[in-house]
This record gives sequence, C-alpha cells and structure tokens, in this order.
Amino acid sequence: MTGTSPIRIGLLGYGTVGSAVHRLLRDSAESIERVTGQPVEVAAALVRDPARHADAPDGLLTTDFARLRDDPTISVVAEVMGGIDPTREYVLALLGAGKSVVSANKQLLSQHGDELFGAAERNGVQLRFEASVCAAIPVVKVLRESMIVTNVHRIDGIVNGTTNFILTRMIQSGAPYADALAEAQALGYAEADPTEDVTGADAAAKIAILASIAFHTRMRLEEVDHVGINLLDLADVEHAAELGYAVKLIASAWRSGGEVAARVHPCLLAANHPLAAVDGAFNAVMLQGSSIREVILEGPGAGGEETATAVIGDVVAVIGTQGTGFLQHDVHYRDVGRFPPGRLQSPCYLRFTVDDTPGVLAQVAQQLADHDVSVAQVVQHPGEAGVHIVILTHRAAEGDVRAAADGVAAKDFSRTAPVLLPVLERHADAT
Amino acid sequence: MTGTSPIRIGLLGYGTVGSAVHRLLRDSAESIERVTGQPVEVAAALVRDPARHADAPDGLLTTDFARLRDDPTISVVAEVMGGIDPTREYVLALLGAGKSVVSANKQLLSQHGDELFGAAERNGVQLRFEASVCAAIPVVKVLRESMIVTNVHRIDGIVNGTTNFILTRMIQSGAPYADALAEAQALGYAEADPTEDVTGADAAAKIAILASIAFHTRMRLEEVDHVGINLLDLADVEHAAELGYAVKLIASAWRSGGEVAARVHPCLLAANHPLAAVDGAFNAVMLQGSSIREVILEGPGAGGEETATAVIGDVVAVIGTQGTGFLQHDVHYRDVGRFPPGRLQSPCYLRFTVDDTPGVLAQVAQQLADHDVSVAQVVQHPGEAGVHIVILTHRAAEGDVRAAADGVAAKDFSRTAPVLLPVLERHADAT
Repeated sequence: MTGTSPIRIGLLGYGTVGSAVHRLLRDSAESIERVTGQPVEVAAALVRDPARHADAPDGLLTTDFARLRDDPTISVVAEVMGGIDPTREYVLALLGAGKSVVSANKQLLSQHGDELFGAAERNGVQLRFEASVCAAIPVVKVLRESMIVTNVHRIDGIVNGTTNFILTRMIQSGAPYADALAEAQALGYAEADPTEDVTGADAAAKIAILASIAFHTRMRLEEVDHVGINLLDLADVEHAAELGYAVKLIASAWRSGGEVAARVHPCLLAANHPLAAVDGAFNAVMLQGSSIREVILEGPGAGGEETATAVIGDVVAVIGTQGTGFLQHDVHYRDVGRFPPGRLQSPCYLRFTVDDTPGVLAQVAQQLADHDVSVAQVVQHPGEAGVHIVILTHRAAEGDVRAAADGVAAKDFSRTAPVLLPVLERHADAT
Repeated sequence: MTGTSPIRIGLLGYGTVGSAVHRLLRDSAESIERVTGQPVEVAAALVRDPARHADAPDGLLTTDFARLRDDPTISVVAEVMGGIDPTREYVLALLGAGKSVVSANKQLLSQHGDELFGAAERNGVQLRFEASVCAAIPVVKVLRESMIVTNVHRIDGIVNGTTNFILTRMIQSGAPYADALAEAQALGYAEADPTEDVTGADAAAKIAILASIAFHTRMRLEEVDHVGINLLDLADVEHAAELGYAVKLIASAWRSGGEVAARVHPCLLAANHPLAAVDGAFNAVMLQGSSIREVILEGPGAGGEETATAVIGDVVAVIGTQGTGFLQHDVHYRDVGRFPPGRLQSPCYLRFTVDDTPGVLAQVAQQLADHDVSVAQVVQHPGEAGVHIVILTHRAAEGDVRAAADGVAAKDFSRTAPVLLPVLERHADAT
C-alpha cells in the first residue's frame, strides 16, 4: 500500500512562499511522513534569476522549465510564482505531463479555472488551490470535503486583509480612508499600488473561487460585481457605528431558487454578527447551509508561512488521495443561472446629503414609501456638503431601495449621490 | 482507478444522528458520487428494537451485529450509537474484520483511543472521529490534514454548547446559574441531568481528543483537570463584565518546553478575544501555531444533522483515501511529558470575600506581593457574605497566584473560599 521511496515535488517559484514551503517541508519532515506514509522532498524549483536566491541549496534552482516537466520522479508541483503569463502555460504543461498541481494563484484560478480543471481531469491528476483563498484558513478543503451534504446556500467573507485593516482603523481611530490607507502602507499591510485590494477586485477573485466550489458552477471573475472601500466616506462609518453597526468589506455568494450570484460590497454588520469582531488584517468566512446552520473559519489571510502551510496541506492531500478518484469529478461544473443581487432582501443603510430646508425629509420618506421600502430608523446629522439624512430600512429588496435612492437623487435638494450599504443579516440564530 | 459499484456502509445505531446520516446520504447522493467517484448506500443499521424506528425502510434494520461484521460488501461503518458498552466491542470487531469505522463517540475515543487506534492500524483500516468533537465544525480534519506543518502549540475552545448557552444568559440577562440552567433545560439545550456538561466533563473528553491529535500523544480523559460552571457565582460574571471581560468555559491544551497539558476551566476573555463573541449554544476552537498564528473555527457544536454532516464527511474521506496509507500512521503516539497547568503564565482574576474592616486590602496586597504577583486593578464591591475584593493581576504563574490566594484564604478575615479565574490571552495580534 505505501512505499518508502520519497515523494518528489517541484516548485514553480522560490520567493517568499516558495522558500517557506521548502523550509517547512524540511522542518516538518517527520510529521509529513507520519501522515502520508512516505517522505516528501523538493526536487527542483524554477526561478528566473538564481542569483536572487543565494541562500537556496546547491542544485535546487533551475531556470529550465523542462527540468520539472520532464522529470518522471516529480509527481506534484506547487505553483507559487503568481501571475497569469507564463504561469498558465506552465501549469497546463505540468497537468498534461501527468503531474498534480497545487496553486496559490487566485487570479489564475478565477480567470482560467475552466481550462485548468478540464486539463487536470483529462489527465487524471489533481489541481488543488487552498492557498489561493485566505492562506492558512482551510476554507477550500472544508467546502470541498466537509460540507458535501450541507447544500451551502450562502457564503459571506472578509477575504481581504488590507481593506479590513483600513476599515478597522477607520472605525477604531476615526481616521479618514486616505490616512488609514497610508498607515496600512507604512505597516506593510497595503501595497504601494493598493488598487487590487481597495477596489474589491482581489476579494472578487476569491469569492469567484469559493462560489464555484460551493455551487458547482463556474463563477468567473468578471461576473462578480465589486464595490470597494476606496470611495467610502468616514462619515458613513461613523453614522453606522452610532447605529451599532461595523462597516466591513464583504464578499458574498448566494444560491437562491436554483440560481446563483456573487459580489463584493461594503456592508453594515450588527455587533452580534460573528464577522463584526474580525479586526485588523484577519480574514473570516461564514458558510451557511441547512444541515450546518453556520460555520465560520477565521485567521490570517496572508503571509508567507501561512500561505506555505496551505500549499503543503494540499501537497499532502494530493499524496493521500492519489489514485482513488477522490475530488477528481467535483470539477464537472453545471450550467446554473445567475440572478441580480438586487433581488436579495436585506435591511439597508441609506445616506442622503441634502439641503437643510423644511419638507426634505417628507419627500425622502415619500420616495421610500413609493417603492414599498419601510423605514426602521432615521437620524439627521450636519455634514460637510449639506445635511446627512441617515436611514436604516426594514428588510426590502435591494433593487427597490436602490430605485427609491435614485428617486431622491433626482430631486433638486440632493447635493451628492446617495450612499447605499446593505446590512448583512445572520440567518441562523444559535440562541 | 474508480469503479461504479456502490460503496456500502453500515450504521451502528439509527437514532437522531443515524437516521440523519441515512437521510442526508440519500438526499446528497449526487454530490457524494461527484466527490468520491462512486455511489454510496446504507446496507444495514444495527438497532436494539426495530419497532422503535417504524419509519425506517424495510430490510434496513437488524438486531444481529454479525450481519454488519460478516458482510464483505460493507467497507465502512458509522458508529452513531454512543456509550462504551457494547459499542467498544462492536468497533473492535469491525476493525478486526477489516472495516474502517467512523465514530461520533467522544467518550469511547477519549477513554479507549489507544486500543481502538491500535486495532485500526494492525488491520490497515481507518478510524475517523470528526463528529466526536464539535459536530459539523471540522476541527479534527483541519488539525490532522491542514495543520501538519504548523506545530500547533495551543488550543483554546468553547466546546460545550450547553454551558456556553448558560453563561451567555448569565452575562446578558443577569440570571443566576440555577435560573439559566433551568432555561437551558426548558429550551432543550441542557439535559434533565446536566452533570456531564456543567462540570466540564464533556468538554474534558473533547479537549483530550484534540490534544491527542495536535500533540501526537495519547491524552487520556482522566488526565484532564476540569472545573465546570456549576459552582460559578453570578457575582463573578458581573464583576468580570464591569472590568470588560466575558466569562466562558474554556477547554485548553498546551505544548510548552517539550511537555503538554490540558484542562477545562472558566476563564475571563477580553472583548477583543475572538472567542468572547461566541454566544449561545455555539462552539468555537482557536488553534495557535507558529506558521498559522491563529485559526478559529466556529459553528453549532451539536444537533442531529450537524453531527451527521461530520459523519458523512468522514465516510467520504475514508473512501477517498482508501489504500493510500494516508492518516494510517499519525496515530503512532509519542510518549510526551506532562506539565501542571499552574506553571502557565497569564493574568488572573481573583475575588476574595472578606470582613469589611480597615487593613484587609493591605493584607491581601501583601500576600500577593509575597508571591511576586503584581496587581493591575482592584475593585471593591459589597457582596452577600461580605465585601468582595476583586483583583486583576498582571501576568503571573497561576501556581503563584493560587498560593497567594490560599494565603489570603487562611486569614481570619476571609469569609468564603477565594475565586480564581485565569484571563485567556490572545497570543497572536493581527493588527
């Protein structure tokens, strides 16, 4: 059943994650052999410029991709180089050569998943990708292997640590967005060009991957609407806090009436929502399904060793399931319809910036009533560009709330575009 | 590699969990076949009295254990009958007959794990037990399969929903323990005899299992000191709340300096501790390790469908790894030393009930100073049996704090035994 000859793995890339994979594999050789029944060793690592990795052991690095592809003793390759080109071609070639691949690359998977999973299946090998979403938080494994019978119908996640760090600073220190971003950059939580993170594009790639697994359909990155935090006004974070809510950037995916949807949007979370307390650069994902109610996974969503931990978990899982057909067929995706998130019902936060004249509130209320949107709370605040009318609605279809907001925006007394933030409800209640 | 003949499984027991396993297997047949590559069907279920399960399909139930043991087409059996006797003998016989077993039985595993894992290994079959701890929260799988290289050095969990429900009620409604317990019983969260839960014995069995996996040693139930909530005074919950802390029943396991320890004890948690917000009957487990920092898993810790979800996840995992040697050898436990939890350093909450006379506080403070325990905060409250002196210490060895408390208890002015509750620290800080 098990042999004692070492399993040899290849690495595409030897940067922060790649070298951490190598180090952790050596440091944990005994634990890994105990779990897999066989020792695991790194055979070769592909890099562009070996001179940049002077600390790598002699003979490990290569600039020749064929050395990995054509080595019959290498059965698993970990892709930790990132990017789409030439990564995509390398991965396809490795799958074609009968090697299983473990990837940490959310962009590659969310944009070319179809092609890659198809190639893995045709060649009878595995493509695993735990490290592509939330680093060491094993959400992919849990969704694929533990939640098989649960019919997960909703996923809500804080899947981008940069934006959660920025929002935490805005909430806790009252720092405007630009200041909180600058602090995140100074501390290394945000890149010099933070666009991918703050626009929600990074979170969109991750929820596309999670939605694809959970709903057995191919959710492509470009299908995921994303609104980031780059346009978020500190005033709304403060108004929300006064009402007892935290603002978080939430990546959501839903299955409803045989159709699915996914998006990224800043949302209000009540203090008792499990994701409300997830602060700083941490990530957390909440899975909701009939037979599990809600399961939440939380932890650091980034970091070299954290990502390497997930990569190695996948490598070990490939070894542990090789030849059994396990997880070889769950990538047969179904053609499932999409629905517009505006169809979803939730309470909503609205902020209108208006002239400070009598009768305005009445007109705003009338617009909401015209669209069957019922008001739970109204607060007025003096704002910079006019009076802020802050409204918390009762549960309503977001499309109706949006239409009412558009109606208000068309009025002469409206000074800036209305702000609409959904309130993230907790469907299960343990108490 | 994969066949299309169905995998036939047996059930030991057909109660709430067993019938849910059967129902979910049928409802999710398509998903399961997609993951395993083969259909899965229930061949037979062993029960004591078939008349009590009138809704079971014809021919499914049997009172004859040999029908499961001797059926060569049954390769996996799910043990969902509970208890030690005759369950232990059934499981040993099934393992001996070459069948893998999935068990939801924390008592069986924490008391007879050695014998059972030894039998599984000798026979080249698997013994999985996800459902024995925290139902649908996949903490066993994550510890065994995702955290292989992380060297988890600490586990802290809220692993008993009954006590967490009671504590949540005490905190939120100011209900005394007895009233909160009665409410939990009325709502079905606590049994008529709640001893196992409220004394911490149930939590002790669960942390014994988790410590055994995480530290690769055999932690036996009887090694786990447990203090429950049955003696917890509402006054201490209220004093803690005033200081900004929630009281939770925490099951902990540590590895430190090559030795390990585990125990169950009520602890104080600061508001920003991820476990502080886990309310009601929910469970949550926090894993800390060098390469993951902290990963938290949260969800419902009980329930028929929730437990069945975990059982099926294990059945599917057995099928997916059969014959690969995966997880066959991680039950080779090492002989590892134990250390007394009193060696651990943490801030502590102390409450002394004393005579209301001048000089008492000075004597209390002197006792603490004599044991090198430094005081962070002192608050005095009038109490029923005397004045409550509430002290929050700085970080100190719990054994020293205990010795100081014993010194105070020996004084004439002490009216009741001192209360000592450790403060659960969060070692990783994401921000």
